Amino acid sequence: MDFKEKYGFYKNLVEDKLLTFTSKVSPAGIYDPMRYILDGGGKRIRPMLLILCCESVGGKAESALDAAAAIEILHNFTLVHDDIMDNADTRRGRETIHKKWDRDTAILAGDGLIGYAYKSLLKTKSPRIQDIAKSFTEAIIEVCEGQSYDKEFETRRKVKPDEYIMMIDKKTSELLKCCAEIGAMIGGGTEDEISSLKQYALNIGLAFQIQDDLLDITADEKEFGKKIGGDLREGKKTFLLLKAIETAKDENDKELLHFVTENKGVRTDEQVLKVKELYERLGIITAAAEKVEEFTSIANAHLNKMADSDAKLMLKWFSDMLLNRTS
Amino acid sequence: MDFKEKYGFYKNLVEDKLLTFTSKVSPAGIYDPMRYILDGGGKRIRPMLLILCCESVGGKAESALDAAAAIEILHNFTLVHDDIMDNADTRRGRETIHKKWDRDTAILAGDGLIGYAYKSLLKTKSPRIQDIAKSFTEAIIEVCEGQSYDKEFETRRKVKPDEYIMMIDKKTSELLKCCAEIGAMIGGGTEDEISSLKQYALNIGLAFQIQDDLLDITADEKEFGKKIGGDLREGKKTFLLLKAIETAKDENDKELLHFVTENKGVRTDEQVLKVKELYERLGIITAAAEKVEEFTSIANAHLNKMADSDAKLMLKWFSDMLLNRTS
Repeated sequence: MDFKEKYGFYKNLVEDKLLTFTSKVSPAGIYDPMRYILDGGGKRIRPMLLILCCESVGGKAESALDAAAAIEILHNFTLVHDDIMDNADTRRGRETIHKKWDRDTAILAGDGLIGYAYKSLLKTKSPRIQDIAKSFTEAIIEVCEGQSYDKEFETRRKVKPDEYIMMIDKKTSELLKCCAEIGAMIGGGTEDEISSLKQYALNIGLAFQIQDDLLDITADEKEFGKKIGGDLREGKKTFLLLKAIETAKDENDKELLHFVTENKGVRTDEQVLKVKELYERLGIITAAAEKVEEFTSIANAHLNKMADSDAKLMLKWFSDMLLNRTS
Repeated sequence: MDFKEKYGFYKNLVEDKLLTFTSKVSPAGIYDPMRYILDGGGKRIRPMLLILCCESVGGKAESALDAAAAIEILHNFTLVHDDIMDNADTRRGRETIHKKWDRDTAILAGDGLIGYAYKSLLKTKSPRIQDIAKSFTEAIIEVCEGQSYDKEFETRRKVKPDEYIMMIDKKTSELLKCCAEIGAMIGGGTEDEISSLKQYALNIGLAFQIQDDLLDITADEKEFGKKIGGDLREGKKTFLLLKAIETAKDENDKELLHFVTENKGVRTDEQVLKVKELYERLGIITAAAEKVEEFTSIANAHLNKMADSDAKLMLKWFSDMLLNRTS
């Protein structure tokens, strides 16, 4: 089996697990929206990372499936509650739960997903189950803190690029780190192995998130499948925008960036291109690309400490795929 | 130490534990409201039940404190999210979180409380930690299902008294049952002891909830500290109202009850008294009191199966106190 096939194979196993968790029907007020979000597709990146980390320390994928499903359910909980807070209308091309049903249903479905996430996790057979559950719990707390900072940054005037990285670390990377830790613990990894895989996953997360910010402005619109500059149009405080604000000295540049934040986003394609030109001129695009490169190198250095295995190769393939995407 | 003193002593230990969980300050957007709700007082019934069940099987209160705090944090999570869904302005005489801050803050603080509830629970040292965490998780799922039924019943035309009991079982009793189970597991109880304590707690929960419904209409207003008939004014589908709807044959009676549900509550004291008179005439008050009696007897029968101990006596004192309250 090549990596792509294996990915598809494991993805199907995870989908099957997720289905068993949504087979309950009553009360429909909670199980319908829970099934809806879990059936909504997605790349299942987190479960895959967990399974591969388990295998890379010599564990069996099978033994990690309940935890893998748990992580995906937990991730979906964050999506449901974040979508309420962000007033998002769509998710993965479909209506969000609070839009299709209502706010209360989305709150409750999210809460139910946390319950089912633990339910799945606690099916795991491992002598380290208490530490596994602790890691899972820390990830929830970090994700909540990250979301809190994210909301705070929306309205705060001055946000430093480093604070942004701290926020995405909590909001995205900590859950990936948790996948690595739990996978490696289930697989019976040593402390060194667990530590290396955690650092690998954490840095992949940071690289991924900044790559995401970068792609939004540098992508080829045809490959991207949508207009570039979506973040700018939303006035989102990305790494690029914050780095530009920190860097800009010229009054005209400052004014343009001020306009983006104060107006909660630009309106026209022309404005997007003007900011893109400013980003290029101030070296922001390069700085962001260097950050992606930096985090990726650190990630790979940690991965390289692991003993050679098919799973290690596949992890490398998997994170390269995540980071070299064009859409 | 008499029971009241001992209650105060354990309550303080729980308060201390709760304080350690709210010492983190940043991001304030999540920790301020979390501290606010946990500092808001309350009878701490659930932690007390957990500790006493631990003692009643020969365990030490000390060993159950992390789990006791966990249950209280979990209970507070349900309050925060339920208050959003119920549009409640006040809780324990203070503004609710979504009122004092905003909706997003309340969603996030509630989510954070679940994280901290597990964090506290997982500090517990017990060979049965996996089963303890499973019990805790099942309680969360039951509470969410109960809340979903509660919301559904608000708008559903026909709700049977038995469905109401099923709902309060999920929304209230399952968490009490979980307290008993976890306390007894930490204390090293046998399967028989755990089973008896679970049944005791579950039936106390049902008795307590119906007693609550009863008190709302039969209390002495001076002792009660507020006007009677609050549930009727809100149009709440209590055991009494549902039993009355099931029982009423006379057209005038049916019309009055229809008025209560269709208008989402009565408006005047006169209307409250009219419904109270109807309840008395149809034997609804007696039926509800009998239900309380029935559940209390079952609870006590299960408690009596336990070996004699101070903790057993104190559990009896504790549940008597809960059921014989006048406000």
